[in-house]
Amino acid sequence: MIKDDTHHKKFQLDRIALFSDAVFAIAITLLIIEIKVPEIEHPFTDSKVLSALSLLIGKFIGLLVSFFVIGRYWLFHHRLFGYVTDYNGKLLWVNLWFLLSIVLMPFSSAFFSEYYVDGLRVPLMFYVLNICFTGYMNYRLLAVVSNPNYKLSTNLQNPKKVKFYQQRSAIAPSVFLFAAIISFLNLYLAYAAFILIPVFSFTINRYYRKHYPDFFK
Amino acid sequence: MIKDDTHHKKFQLDRIALFSDAVFAIAITLLIIEIKVPEIEHPFTDSKVLSALSLLIGKFIGLLVSFFVIGRYWLFHHRLFGYVTDYNGKLLWVNLWFLLSIVLMPFSSAFFSEYYVDGLRVPLMFYVLNICFTGYMNYRLLAVVSNPNYKLSTNLQNPKKVKFYQQRSAIAPSVFLFAAIISFLNLYLAYAAFILIPVFSFTINRYYRKHYPDFFK
Amino acid sequence: MIKDDTHHKKFQLDRIALFSDAVFAIAITLLIIEIKVPEIEHPFTDSKVLSALSLLIGKFIGLLVSFFVIGRYWLFHHRLFGYVTDYNGKLLWVNLWFLLSIVLMPFSSAFFSEYYVDGLRVPLMFYVLNICFTGYMNYRLLAVVSNPNYKLSTNLQNPKKVKFYQQRSAIAPSVFLFAAIISFLNLYLAYAAFILIPVFSFTINRYYRKHYPDFFK
Amino acid sequence: MIKDDTHHKKFQLDRIALFSDAVFAIAITLLIIEIKVPEIEHPFTDSKVLSALSLLIGKFIGLLVSFFVIGRYWLFHHRLFGYVTDYNGKLLWVNLWFLLSIVLMPFSSAFFSEYYVDGLRVPLMFYVLNICFTGYMNYRLLAVVSNPNYKLSTNLQNPKKVKFYQQRSAIAPSVFLFAAIISFLNLYLAYAAFILIPVFSFTINRYYRKHYPDFFK
Repeated sequence: MIKDDTHHKKFQLDRIALFSDAVFAIAITLLIIEIKVPEIEHPFTDSKVLSALSLLIGKFIGLLVSFFVIGRYWLFHHRLFGYVTDYNGKLLWVNLWFLLSIVLMPFSSAFFSEYYVDGLRVPLMFYVLNICFTGYMNYRLLAVVSNPNYKLSTNLQNPKKVKFYQQRSAIAPSVFLFAAIISFLNLYLAYAAFILIPVFSFTINRYYRKHYPDFFK
Repeated sequence: MIKDDTHHKKFQLDRIALFSDAVFAIAITLLIIEIKVPEIEHPFTDSKVLSALSLLIGKFIGLLVSFFVIGRYWLFHHRLFGYVTDYNGKLLWVNLWFLLSIVLMPFSSAFFSEYYVDGLRVPLMFYVLNICFTGYMNYRLLAVVSNPNYKLSTNLQNPKKVKFYQQRSAIAPSVFLFAAIISFLNLYLAYAAFILIPVFSFTINRYYRKHYPDFFK
Repeated sequence: MIKDDTHHKKFQLDRIALFSDAVFAIAITLLIIEIKVPEIEHPFTDSKVLSALSLLIGKFIGLLVSFFVIGRYWLFHHRLFGYVTDYNGKLLWVNLWFLLSIVLMPFSSAFFSEYYVDGLRVPLMFYVLNICFTGYMNYRLLAVVSNPNYKLSTNLQNPKKVKFYQQRSAIAPSVFLFAAIISFLNLYLAYAAFILIPVFSFTINRYYRKHYPDFFK
Repeated sequence: MIKDDTHHKKFQLDRIALFSDAVFAIAITLLIIEIKVPEIEHPFTDSKVLSALSLLIGKFIGLLVSFFVIGRYWLFHHRLFGYVTDYNGKLLWVNLWFLLSIVLMPFSSAFFSEYYVDGLRVPLMFYVLNICFTGYMNYRLLAVVSNPNYKLSTNLQNPKKVKFYQQRSAIAPSVFLFAAIISFLNLYLAYAAFILIPVFSFTINRYYRKHYPDFFK
């Protein structure tokens, strides 16, 4: 018997985080697969290839947005599991649902990126729905981990701190939903609304940094 | 020499689990690659893109089913390796065969999802065969780990507990096989039969929770 | 400072193995991407889809062969790193070259699987060259790890044991090379030669198990 | 509670490295996806398949270059995190930007490999820009880790050592940028310039090995 029990239990918990990391890493890297190398017709010239490349700008912006959306949720998952000290079946299942929402991202992102330059609303809605789904599962994960009855975490007893994390995780879905709604008025205004994500992040962080400096280690 | 022997041996065992996790994570994330962004013809309109999207509903249902099938087997693998304290060549090889069955899943799932809305039986059979293959290798893995001669596990001496895990791991393949058989009578009845998976899971869990509460930590 | 030096150094070594594992896991899972879901023409029937599926049998056999070729090399890497206690730049670079040969596998395998049913020799040669390249880098990795001047391993001082591992790692490339050569006489005889891999494995294992039983833990 | 605080904090730091490893591993393995198995027309002959294969030589050279560019940056990341003893939000974000530049590599590399045999300059520029972006984020990561105010590392206090790492990480972007500039004079001279990478590496290593032998463990 080469493993003792304590190492064992710790490793079982670590495996959940590492499996999630692998899913995040693959989803974030698959974003690039959806952008195909531009095919041009003979004879090949630099100006042709440049104009073919310029048609991909919309897709690169979409990749950038999705990369940081997934990246933010990874950061959140990383921070949250910093509190987790035990696990149960509920945590495992909610985590799987959360990962499902991440797995869908490369599709939603590519779908959105393909058509948003043409001002279509359906792909935007689909993308926003995906982000809201991710945000909701993120919220549920936080609820399971911080639930005192399950005894799954340490240092998360402070309800104010849980609220802080809830608010932060609600920013992206709220802004995307808001953008989706105002897209019926004006689509470009909707895209401009995305600037609210850093604005809200900054404001919430500032408020808590002032009133609860101990939340920031 | 920066590594001592005990750490070494533990890490060798952990590597098997982490390599398996990576294969699971990639297989579960590749499911989305099989769903391509719908291509529509100019001029682009929301109604066109919506109807193109609606044609993908079958594929999304397939993705959902496969995501949770793979997810369930990952949970099983995770739980099983919670008992593993040593390894031998047999465990490594059976684990590889088990992973082979997982690697095939994105193909089987996409094949099934492509044609099940048209009521074809061959893709369903192929998918069911894949799940039975996974179920069988899962069963073999449990047999190797719990075999007292190999001394590979701890806390799995209770034959009743092993039986409990065997029964649980047999649910999915049994139901899929049953569904495949009744698909010759009626294909839609076959799909409806999938509801038996949670029903059986619930019933078996309930029975053991009542009679062997210590199996649930 | 949350990390002490000893943990640090161990983790640095573990990272090399885990990074390699991830590359192995991705390469082994990408094999399935190369097999596309068969497209059939309307009206869809089971017999059409079955005959389309039967055309893929060659590719599935190719996948199976490559899955176990990569799997064997992973097992070898896993065993070898069980001896590694330190690392240097040379080990890192040889490991990278070894991983390059693994990364090429999904292509070589798909290329070979696409054309071998038609009796072409070039794809077979390409595949064999890839396996020889992997085998050679594998041999180099073993040489670096077991080199007493580098002090990178423990329990590998016995030259007979190193030889045992060398012989085992030479089986696959030798048989594939032999198969490639006799393919000029008869292609089907060449494929039949693959059966030599398990035969040689078994014979070598048996010899060493008899004369050096301590090599088998 | 199955996890103590010290293990926890260490694992949180390890997760950042392992998540990065997964992204590196996927990006380096995706390079092969961009090389498709050559399709030839019936009747299949060895000479046809050989000439189709020879058209892929440019892509294989591109894969080789990109494999070792990504591999070098992984080695750098591996070495750098050997010094990291703590993390903060800044490190997490700079690491994400660094990973973004790695995620873009399979596209840039495939784009470059597709057209460089035709002597186009735009794909070369795009590839060089990507490598400069990676080099810059690499530089920033080193700056964050070695910044004494953040207290994130140990054994990196020596400014000369930091400079050594900075110079080494600047080699690849500098040479690629230089090659891009002289590509306006002569494209083949530009490709020849890549030989400067090992030359500079060797020279810098030799200088420091002579004057600061303790930098090499």
